[in-house]
Amino acid sequence: MFIPTPIDWTPTHAIRILDQTLLPGQECYLELDTLEDVAEAIGSLRVRGAPLIGISAAMGVAMAAKRRPAGPDGLARVREDCARLGVTRPTAINLRWALSRMERRAVAADARGEDLAAALLAEADTIWKEDRAMCVRIGQLGADLVPPGAVVGTICNAGALATGGIGTALAPIYTLHAAGRGPHVVVPETRPLLQGSRLTAWELMRAGVACTLIGDGMIASRLRRGDVGCVFVGADRIAANGDVANKIGTYGLALAARAHGIPFYVAAPTSTIDPATPDGSAIPIEERGADEVAEWGGRRTAPAGAAVWNPAFDVTPAELVTAIITDRGIVAPRDVARALD
Amino acid sequence: MFIPTPIDWTPTHAIRILDQTLLPGQECYLELDTLEDVAEAIGSLRVRGAPLIGISAAMGVAMAAKRRPAGPDGLARVREDCARLGVTRPTAINLRWALSRMERRAVAADARGEDLAAALLAEADTIWKEDRAMCVRIGQLGADLVPPGAVVGTICNAGALATGGIGTALAPIYTLHAAGRGPHVVVPETRPLLQGSRLTAWELMRAGVACTLIGDGMIASRLRRGDVGCVFVGADRIAANGDVANKIGTYGLALAARAHGIPFYVAAPTSTIDPATPDGSAIPIEERGADEVAEWGGRRTAPAGAAVWNPAFDVTPAELVTAIITDRGIVAPRDVARALD
Repeated sequence: MFIPTPIDWTPTHAIRILDQTLLPGQECYLELDTLEDVAEAIGSLRVRGAPLIGISAAMGVAMAAKRRPAGPDGLARVREDCARLGVTRPTAINLRWALSRMERRAVAADARGEDLAAALLAEADTIWKEDRAMCVRIGQLGADLVPPGAVVGTICNAGALATGGIGTALAPIYTLHAAGRGPHVVVPETRPLLQGSRLTAWELMRAGVACTLIGDGMIASRLRRGDVGCVFVGADRIAANGDVANKIGTYGLALAARAHGIPFYVAAPTSTIDPATPDGSAIPIEERGADEVAEWGGRRTAPAGAAVWNPAFDVTPAELVTAIITDRGIVAPRDVARALD
Repeated sequence: MFIPTPIDWTPTHAIRILDQTLLPGQECYLELDTLEDVAEAIGSLRVRGAPLIGISAAMGVAMAAKRRPAGPDGLARVREDCARLGVTRPTAINLRWALSRMERRAVAADARGEDLAAALLAEADTIWKEDRAMCVRIGQLGADLVPPGAVVGTICNAGALATGGIGTALAPIYTLHAAGRGPHVVVPETRPLLQGSRLTAWELMRAGVACTLIGDGMIASRLRRGDVGCVFVGADRIAANGDVANKIGTYGLALAARAHGIPFYVAAPTSTIDPATPDGSAIPIEERGADEVAEWGGRRTAPAGAAVWNPAFDVTPAELVTAIITDRGIVAPRDVARALD
């Protein structure tokens, strides 16, 4: 089964990424060798998906430390790098989670007189390795929730391209597919940036998983047909009360799932849970540029001067979430903070 | 206030249409002078919108009769023309309603020995004129339902470009705007063909009505913000039990409106009500080509070979519809057939 590698080290510890803005037309890999390259790649969504953003940031900090001469200002420079990458995108908490972890590791290494770059490279690799393991565990837990023969719904891309492993929302799909009982997946295109059409359809098709692409406005009608057994979505941040920020359109999908009695599961590593955010209203929602909605491939499709509202994420209230599938078990939304204990 | 003219006669009784596939980039008018031109224009959505489809078909039948020599086979030819145009699109009942009316008028003219072409031209003009009046009446009735200062939601285009007058769903907006109390309109782009982005935003902006464009996946989030006072949508067919077929995405919008306690109004002329269709499950839903979802401007955006489901319409069950605004009054969905009495 083909699983893409959205990020990797080069032999010289530069970062090799699959440029996700060019898929599916071009499978193009870029080498990032400065912190600004990494910041640009995150900000422009060349790498995206909450877990992968965290991994990318951790690798970016390690790479920058590795590529400069060791010196007395090493810890201060790491802190600057963490601050720089921390402002690239506001919603996914995994970014801050990974950067906090890198900074703590740098402080510890500095205090103990360890080699800073080596410590940070090891920590970034650990974050990446843990993410792969989390995906596997989520896949196992989620696979048991899919009724035999059922069609599965999702949105955006919470697959291999969003993580260091086999994905979050798509992990149960891959797990079932590897066992010879892969379900059919309904993939909303996920405007404005078409992560469903461009990324999820691409990776599922490459892995041999049957899928059908639909427009976002078709979700409710598709769920009404009666053969969708459950919905899996990823998350960019889960608040302490179980409210879930995820790609714009998730909330409407959750409403449609509720209307049709279809279980709605959020699949996310525990790094996505933010106990410091009390509820969804406290989650900062990134608003992106008008052109993402008003243009296509540089060609204007909306009237010149049209006002646009373009939030990249929405919040699904905990009461619409059947359960949250984490690497530490399946929990009720209201109990999500306990998964961190 | 600028109101576009999507269809008109030329001085020689050809049909002049605004090619809606080219908006908003080009405001291009085409002259149709054969029945096949009209069939192509309807099938390719150069003219679209349930009421306008009906008007276009009626004018097409009249034009064809006018442009051929009178003869003993006149009535048979009209019947052939009606059959040809009747298969251009399956969902909007206004098409069959208008063609039935033209055919009945032809039968009567034939029986009475009237000039067939003159009778059909007069009938088409009457259909068109009645549509304009229906729009005005819907606008007056609907305007009273908009709370002062409220934002109004809609989907697709049920405006001047969809009718012979000031629209159906947008008629209350224009009525309020003309009175100096135009509400702000939220316009979902309406994939795959972007009638919201390309057509509704265009005609509202040309008329000076404030509007904000959003992606279809943003609808539920936008309605959650609390300032949307009501939603107006058009209809392609209303079944006897009040179920409503309209542009794909309408059902999800209705679910979101219900979740937030926002009144959801369907605005349509009585020609859209089909007492012969018992409920929504009996409405034929047009499925269109995969490329509308998988390509953009001729450029492939989904992976090659991706399976696509592309229904052009969905059905909103009567229980989600607050009221139906017709030219004969505001009716409860379950009472919609009575509006025809």
